[in-house]
Amino acid sequence: MKSTTPAITSPKGFRAAGIHCGLKKNEAPDLALVISDVPAQVAGVYTKNLVKGHSLQRTVKLVSERSETRGILINSGNANACVGSVGYQDAEDAAAAVAGIVGCSPDDILTCSTGVIGQRMNMSALLSGIPMLASSLSHSQEAGHNAMKAILTTDLVPKESTAVIEIGETKITLSGMAKGSGMIHPNLATMISVITTDARISAPLLHKLLTQAVAHTFNRVSVDGDTSVCDSLLIMANGLCGGKEILEGTPECDLFYNALSQISMDLSRMIARDGEGATKLVEVEVTGAASEQDAYLVVLAVCRSPLCKTAIFGEDANWGRILTAVGYSGASFDPEKVDICIGGLPVCTDGMALPFDEKAAKKILHKDEVNISIVLHEGEYTDRMWTCDFSYDYVKINGSYRS
Amino acid sequence: MKSTTPAITSPKGFRAAGIHCGLKKNEAPDLALVISDVPAQVAGVYTKNLVKGHSLQRTVKLVSERSETRGILINSGNANACVGSVGYQDAEDAAAAVAGIVGCSPDDILTCSTGVIGQRMNMSALLSGIPMLASSLSHSQEAGHNAMKAILTTDLVPKESTAVIEIGETKITLSGMAKGSGMIHPNLATMISVITTDARISAPLLHKLLTQAVAHTFNRVSVDGDTSVCDSLLIMANGLCGGKEILEGTPECDLFYNALSQISMDLSRMIARDGEGATKLVEVEVTGAASEQDAYLVVLAVCRSPLCKTAIFGEDANWGRILTAVGYSGASFDPEKVDICIGGLPVCTDGMALPFDEKAAKKILHKDEVNISIVLHEGEYTDRMWTCDFSYDYVKINGSYRS
Repeated sequence: MKSTTPAITSPKGFRAAGIHCGLKKNEAPDLALVISDVPAQVAGVYTKNLVKGHSLQRTVKLVSERSETRGILINSGNANACVGSVGYQDAEDAAAAVAGIVGCSPDDILTCSTGVIGQRMNMSALLSGIPMLASSLSHSQEAGHNAMKAILTTDLVPKESTAVIEIGETKITLSGMAKGSGMIHPNLATMISVITTDARISAPLLHKLLTQAVAHTFNRVSVDGDTSVCDSLLIMANGLCGGKEILEGTPECDLFYNALSQISMDLSRMIARDGEGATKLVEVEVTGAASEQDAYLVVLAVCRSPLCKTAIFGEDANWGRILTAVGYSGASFDPEKVDICIGGLPVCTDGMALPFDEKAAKKILHKDEVNISIVLHEGEYTDRMWTCDFSYDYVKINGSYRS
Repeated sequence: MKSTTPAITSPKGFRAAGIHCGLKKNEAPDLALVISDVPAQVAGVYTKNLVKGHSLQRTVKLVSERSETRGILINSGNANACVGSVGYQDAEDAAAAVAGIVGCSPDDILTCSTGVIGQRMNMSALLSGIPMLASSLSHSQEAGHNAMKAILTTDLVPKESTAVIEIGETKITLSGMAKGSGMIHPNLATMISVITTDARISAPLLHKLLTQAVAHTFNRVSVDGDTSVCDSLLIMANGLCGGKEILEGTPECDLFYNALSQISMDLSRMIARDGEGATKLVEVEVTGAASEQDAYLVVLAVCRSPLCKTAIFGEDANWGRILTAVGYSGASFDPEKVDICIGGLPVCTDGMALPFDEKAAKKILHKDEVNISIVLHEGEYTDRMWTCDFSYDYVKINGSYRS
């Protein structure tokens, strides 16, 4: 039975596959491939960590040198990072093996890896899995879901989002998948994600729109303040929708950008909600900041605070910790003008405690989605960020990750 | 039976007391007083959080206006923060009640509060406890320990350190106590601590030496990256040692500074070791950084990383997370020149995995003190910071703090 929910294969001319080749100790899928039937325009954003995994180093180099690609090979279970020059060669060898079967140049295949750092990949497992992976390639949605599953690490749920726009007679589809979970923090792209689209659009414009969309979506997610060495978001546009090229500054470009933003926001929220050990999605909003930077600093500090995040896990309306985080965020503001609401319930006004119904607060915090709203009354700037609560399971998952 | 271990009352002419007055729900001590028999020179460093508790606001004002004090009233169980102007008045009223019994001006009594934010203090409990507190004042070491116990919140162990120096015939004693545990992060003084000394030294010089000592001790402790609204460190010098005044730039001043540094370091390490939920003290050292700022950024990033701290809790030699934290720290360095040792065991050289004995690593990480050493090979700068591991109990303690 074929799945009919959207997948990375929803746009025209994209095939995908996901299998278990042996990089993970359990039987979970660990090798994914997404291939465009024709050369696709490509753009990417990457972790800003100075340390970068070898597979990612190769991808960064290729995308900077070429505007086209045929596909992306992604493995989980091993980050292919910090193992020396052999790591780059391993990524080259894996791409060459895929290229040999798909029928393209090795440089047409980008590479991403995620998992344990500092251990060489089991290349014999990976290489011996590639023929099976290639033979599983399919345009079906099921194949797309299989690819999705194969990039997960400690994620509990797959993360997929699709949008369809119509420009005249032409239907354009965009579809994204993402893995997240831990080592998630803004301004560093914060996960591995692939977006496919059958739009006709140039690589430079794609890069521009992607960077814009990421700024307020993927770069506004924090799980733990850590940022990995493998984070990347790649978008491929193969032009097979059959319509005209999307050009900058046109209404069509706006439509495309909105769809791209929507997918990015969907995936970002899914990443926060499925943060390691998370029981809740937490949305932190600030309004009335004196500057864009101040607004960002405020949401960042609250989303990063272990004390705020453990209080939310404990369903404790401890707004003092929220105000404390705002206080050390680096933003400039008058502590005696701050208002705070939790799930719409005012708990602090003019920087002072408000009497509130603890039972009502408990009910709000018991939900699986909690909004925290902070008003500074200093200016016109706003920002919004997503995080999750901080639970026992975060500690459990990360106390024994390599074992 | 009198305790003979050092206490805040060890220097000549200091009395202390600690009692339960009813600010804490359980029967634990929650009100402490330290009094100098004669006016003492005073200096302080405080949290840089924009939000400051009312008791602390009062202390900051008094210390900035006057060079002398008679003592410090400290309560736990309530931070006296974010309750509006009544909070400042409550601190004034508490100081006045103490002054009335001790026989000094209310402005001679400084105030510190620590505990829950945003709830008014139970002033009737506090005020009715003050006569008993004052009548318990004693020069005994036991009284000093009682004061220590009364400033603790989620701390599991008291934190006290004493040093004695001899200048000619004169014996000078310095003694400190501190509470720490959560909301601990550098550059913001990060706890409540009081140091007493019978040295003869002026308030300005005291402030200068204190600021220097704090830079490499109290400001190098991180428990969770959060910084409270009540953090403060106060030192009182009453001159009762009988010797000459300590003047800047003299060998005596160096001796005094070294003793002050030693106490500050002792207390800092105790705070890190007793961080909320901690099972281990973690010392992170960097050498070979290109600048002082780079060195600081590196130790800060590693000490703040939940992923490094949960791995250490899990006794997992996951050095990839350490290198990852160094990578996003903001320090500039070449990832291919980094060496990392865990407890003296080399695990990474030139940014690459080293084969190491996992059993030996496990043994090292099983100890209650773990050293992480990072060498960047970029320059001459070094830094060192203390933190603790991140355990289930941190989540437990902070998920239900107000309840």
